[in-house]
Amino acid sequence: MSTTQSLRTLLDGPHAAVRDEVRTLLKDPDMGPAIGLGVEEHRARVAQQMQRLASHGIGPSLGFPGHVGGHDDPGGGIAAFETLAFGDLSLLVKVGVQWGLFGGAVMQLGNAEQIERYGPDIVTLALPGCFAMTETGHGSDVEQLRTTATYAPADDEFIVHTPDEDARKDYIGNAARDGRMAVVFAQLIVDDTNHGVHALLVPLRDDEHNLLPGVHITDDGHKAGLNGVDNGRITFDAVRVPRTNLLDRFGTVDPDGTYRSTIESRTRRFFTMLGALVQGRTSVSGAAINASKVALTIAVRYGETRRQFSSPDEVQENRLLDYQAHQRLLLPLLARTYALHFAQEELVRRYVASQDGDDAEARREVESIAAGMKAQATWHCNEVMQACREACGGAGYLSENRLPSLRADTDVFATFEGANTVLMQLVAKGLLTGYSEEFSELDLMGTVRFVADRVLDNVVERLRAVPLLQSLRGAAPVRQTEDLRDRGWHCELFADREEHALETVAARIKAGMDDDGDAFAAFNRAQTHVLYAARVHMENVVLGHLTAAVGKCEDDDVRELLGLVADLYALHTIEADRAWFLEHGRLTPETTKGITQMVDVLCNELRPRALELVEAFGVPEEALMAPIATGAEAARQQLRSVAGPA
Amino acid sequence: MSTTQSLRTLLDGPHAAVRDEVRTLLKDPDMGPAIGLGVEEHRARVAQQMQRLASHGIGPSLGFPGHVGGHDDPGGGIAAFETLAFGDLSLLVKVGVQWGLFGGAVMQLGNAEQIERYGPDIVTLALPGCFAMTETGHGSDVEQLRTTATYAPADDEFIVHTPDEDARKDYIGNAARDGRMAVVFAQLIVDDTNHGVHALLVPLRDDEHNLLPGVHITDDGHKAGLNGVDNGRITFDAVRVPRTNLLDRFGTVDPDGTYRSTIESRTRRFFTMLGALVQGRTSVSGAAINASKVALTIAVRYGETRRQFSSPDEVQENRLLDYQAHQRLLLPLLARTYALHFAQEELVRRYVASQDGDDAEARREVESIAAGMKAQATWHCNEVMQACREACGGAGYLSENRLPSLRADTDVFATFEGANTVLMQLVAKGLLTGYSEEFSELDLMGTVRFVADRVLDNVVERLRAVPLLQSLRGAAPVRQTEDLRDRGWHCELFADREEHALETVAARIKAGMDDDGDAFAAFNRAQTHVLYAARVHMENVVLGHLTAAVGKCEDDDVRELLGLVADLYALHTIEADRAWFLEHGRLTPETTKGITQMVDVLCNELRPRALELVEAFGVPEEALMAPIATGAEAARQQLRSVAGPA
Repeated sequence: MSTTQSLRTLLDGPHAAVRDEVRTLLKDPDMGPAIGLGVEEHRARVAQQMQRLASHGIGPSLGFPGHVGGHDDPGGGIAAFETLAFGDLSLLVKVGVQWGLFGGAVMQLGNAEQIERYGPDIVTLALPGCFAMTETGHGSDVEQLRTTATYAPADDEFIVHTPDEDARKDYIGNAARDGRMAVVFAQLIVDDTNHGVHALLVPLRDDEHNLLPGVHITDDGHKAGLNGVDNGRITFDAVRVPRTNLLDRFGTVDPDGTYRSTIESRTRRFFTMLGALVQGRTSVSGAAINASKVALTIAVRYGETRRQFSSPDEVQENRLLDYQAHQRLLLPLLARTYALHFAQEELVRRYVASQDGDDAEARREVESIAAGMKAQATWHCNEVMQACREACGGAGYLSENRLPSLRADTDVFATFEGANTVLMQLVAKGLLTGYSEEFSELDLMGTVRFVADRVLDNVVERLRAVPLLQSLRGAAPVRQTEDLRDRGWHCELFADREEHALETVAARIKAGMDDDGDAFAAFNRAQTHVLYAARVHMENVVLGHLTAAVGKCEDDDVRELLGLVADLYALHTIEADRAWFLEHGRLTPETTKGITQMVDVLCNELRPRALELVEAFGVPEEALMAPIATGAEAARQQLRSVAGPA
Repeated sequence: MSTTQSLRTLLDGPHAAVRDEVRTLLKDPDMGPAIGLGVEEHRARVAQQMQRLASHGIGPSLGFPGHVGGHDDPGGGIAAFETLAFGDLSLLVKVGVQWGLFGGAVMQLGNAEQIERYGPDIVTLALPGCFAMTETGHGSDVEQLRTTATYAPADDEFIVHTPDEDARKDYIGNAARDGRMAVVFAQLIVDDTNHGVHALLVPLRDDEHNLLPGVHITDDGHKAGLNGVDNGRITFDAVRVPRTNLLDRFGTVDPDGTYRSTIESRTRRFFTMLGALVQGRTSVSGAAINASKVALTIAVRYGETRRQFSSPDEVQENRLLDYQAHQRLLLPLLARTYALHFAQEELVRRYVASQDGDDAEARREVESIAAGMKAQATWHCNEVMQACREACGGAGYLSENRLPSLRADTDVFATFEGANTVLMQLVAKGLLTGYSEEFSELDLMGTVRFVADRVLDNVVERLRAVPLLQSLRGAAPVRQTEDLRDRGWHCELFADREEHALETVAARIKAGMDDDGDAFAAFNRAQTHVLYAARVHMENVVLGHLTAAVGKCEDDDVRELLGLVADLYALHTIEADRAWFLEHGRLTPETTKGITQMVDVLCNELRPRALELVEAFGVPEEALMAPIATGAEAARQQLRSVAGPA
């Protein structure tokens, strides 16, 4: 096998067959991305593609139970979703709405009867649905949603109501055109008592697709991207649904109006419900990584063929990728894409395992890492899209070269499924509470008080108890080294930075609370540090999984190549944050200057391998589309012949 | 006058009347931005808007001579163009193509007869034209364009020809739909001798708008943004034009086939022609700054009204702008927008002065600063658009809130009118040659050799001779200070950093040439440092102009407010690059940590003034459009009543 093929096998991992099945589907011109469509045309095209996917039975519904038409294979479901990110991202998001969010909510929050009743129609798309959580006035702070579901015991019904315009459901995918039912998140009120946010099934349209009485839907209209998805606003005017429409796995109402839940605390119940929906975030991070692969494939192929300016002594002009600035723009992002890929693979593995097992702490940790991965991968994706667009110059601005739609479509990934900044605070909460039971009990201000109440050392003790960190670093303090490519040293630097950042945050919060006891003020003064601690934690997690992947690699050439990727990821990350290492006495100016030079060297070493690295992603030519990228076929042939027969 | 009004007067500067005239035009719904149009619909709308502007006589043609219908007011022309950036950016770019690039090329490169003949029709839009420089295979390296214009003495004509597909003109605005004539840049060949790139007028379409024989045009199709501009690809198949169509201010061909030019060197001639077109870049930077103002107005107003999460002790939730992370996201960008505004104003003043005078060195310096401002302002604009989109969450993704089109439209600003990375190399070239005569003689590799040949000290001497730097810093080395808000200290830090960066680049290039004498390799190993030196130079220039603007300010409250803005700009810039200051022993870790804290403090101080700062931009409500921004009217009213009567 060629290095490219070995790499591809490694990247595709245990769900290679599912990934290849989706690749094959995307080769069909009707299933691939399209350019320059009007909103309605685009929506209609994606709706047809949805039917094709449903008839193939491929997508997140692979994770549903076999008895409703799934395959009990959540890992395969996520792999299918991730691979769909090679194609039209409107289709990806519409798939996510139907089978990930709507279907996922029924599977995770519903009871056995509800799963049995709705599951099959969700799988076949006979019942297209929405996930109606976000409101115009409340996105990140779901606990404060204003839609109400009030129990009316006389009729054994809930009355779902939108009290004001700020409380209308907004940005809801599938609402403007196709949705027939919605999972609606609302404050559950029984006998004047508010039991907090719960989810109910609310029909939106009848069999003739007319809106049902009391349901008002308007169109969110044209968006920056994802115009194949029909987002809309839903207002409920005292809409009545049967009591049995409450998705009541975590809390139910008896016919007599008694509210019952196995989870007594309202806050804990709320966070438990949200936690059950973690698959959505896990899927978005994987999709963001794969969309990044498409853009990098286009930009690297273009950089290999486009020439600009000649050296006076040369006959031909230099290729763009020969320029240091061009290498610096693309190659660290390529390395980070590999790093995130392996971290994502491990996240999915642990997510699947946590679903089977009964380890609540493991689930809390997965939830926290999923939040962090979603934020890191989608921010990364935005950075990749911008860099690739610029790296392709004017050609990158033409829609035919796909980068414009990739960029516009993925932009909102940083916002949906949890705004990234808020998710990073969730990561910090996990770290500061050590994923202990309190994790599920505390909101933001509660976390602040929790941290302030504990002795500082406890934070670090809890941190040291996290298995991942234990495995990554020994007991030794950060040492200086002659060998800037010593991977153990990279790991020590990352782990030490995380530990110090977390200690600092805890100390700051405590000091802030000592000042005046105002939790918001204490949090706000520390917010930059909270976000920093969460970020360096995630960078550490990602390096750990990348390092592990290199270590496990059996093919010598692949291991060597991935080692280069790991060195570049680690040193570029340190370089970008070298101010911290200098400020905290971890590195000397001589070392950080050496690291900057080493990043140049690594870019130069990796440059001849860049094409192999993107070819291993296996983005189908048909999905790439871009003439500037597929025109590079000749160059790739040449490379193949140099690298030896496949 | 209220602070907002005083600020507005200060920002509008000497061309306030022109700016207000454009603002009034943009209030007309037919002249403002539009959402969700198809490509052809959008093009038609912009074409109508162009007619309206032409009939008003407002735009860059204000700078044309009075005898062709202009007002001999280049400063007013640039001000009009900048203000158009508040509206639909497709209109802005189409204006730039017609009157800035096409018209500007005729005015700057044409002879008196040509100006007389074509000027009036260009002003009235009777002759819509294109600026056909870029080719599919050559954007940044204009000197290597492949289109040829070969003189045929028998017919007294030039034969304009596209030798291959890579040489077709590409991304040419006005080509796909409206252009009737093009200024075509081609290698001028007379009697088998290539005299380098020259510009010729080539008719594209006849009076019935049919393509002329030999002219082939295809449509660049749908783009990421700017879809109201009809970009296209032009191929010339041995198209013949009269000899007198050569724009021959810098080089001409006699009927007998004798080539004549007052500039002997081919390279110098080429760079002199390009230099004459500097107004285009000067205009783009101003437009990028004003587009940033629109986005910031939307995001700051939204951040003032949208609430999320409550402190337990408060009745209402916190406003987004109360959060430290939100302040950190928007306020340094707001400060930098002000800084760039004042630098832009000074650039325009010096550009206009340099056009009148006969100071070649001043012109070279203006050219260099214009290149740097174009790159800095357009990168800044991209950053602002992304931050504002994210700051508005899901609402920022809806086209009705204008941020999507602002972001998509401005993205390519970093590429057109010179790719930013290449422009920053031009800045470095200016610094490394001290704007001496050699500046116009040297290409990139020539510059490398020039630098390597000189004694290092000369670079710094030349640098010190630049008047701007002299005025900014004294003779003292960088001192430590207790007062982090000492503006003189900021200026010293910026100037010292620039000087050191430039010395380093010169030393690296010299060492690289000493190694093996390969100019490309020597340049490439230093490229990151070359770009760094150019950037810190521009940051220094910008700080200088901002500081000067604060100093000149007569209104106490405005001066205090702008002082805050200047402190934030300076310290945030230092914070972002604090690794450099630490690595080079300029600042201690204690000081850089203090600067990070001070940036938090400054954000907090500026936060209550953010609304005033964006209101002073004077973006018309009608052009803002965004419901999330115009809905903030109530909050602004409240602020006004607190701030006192207007």
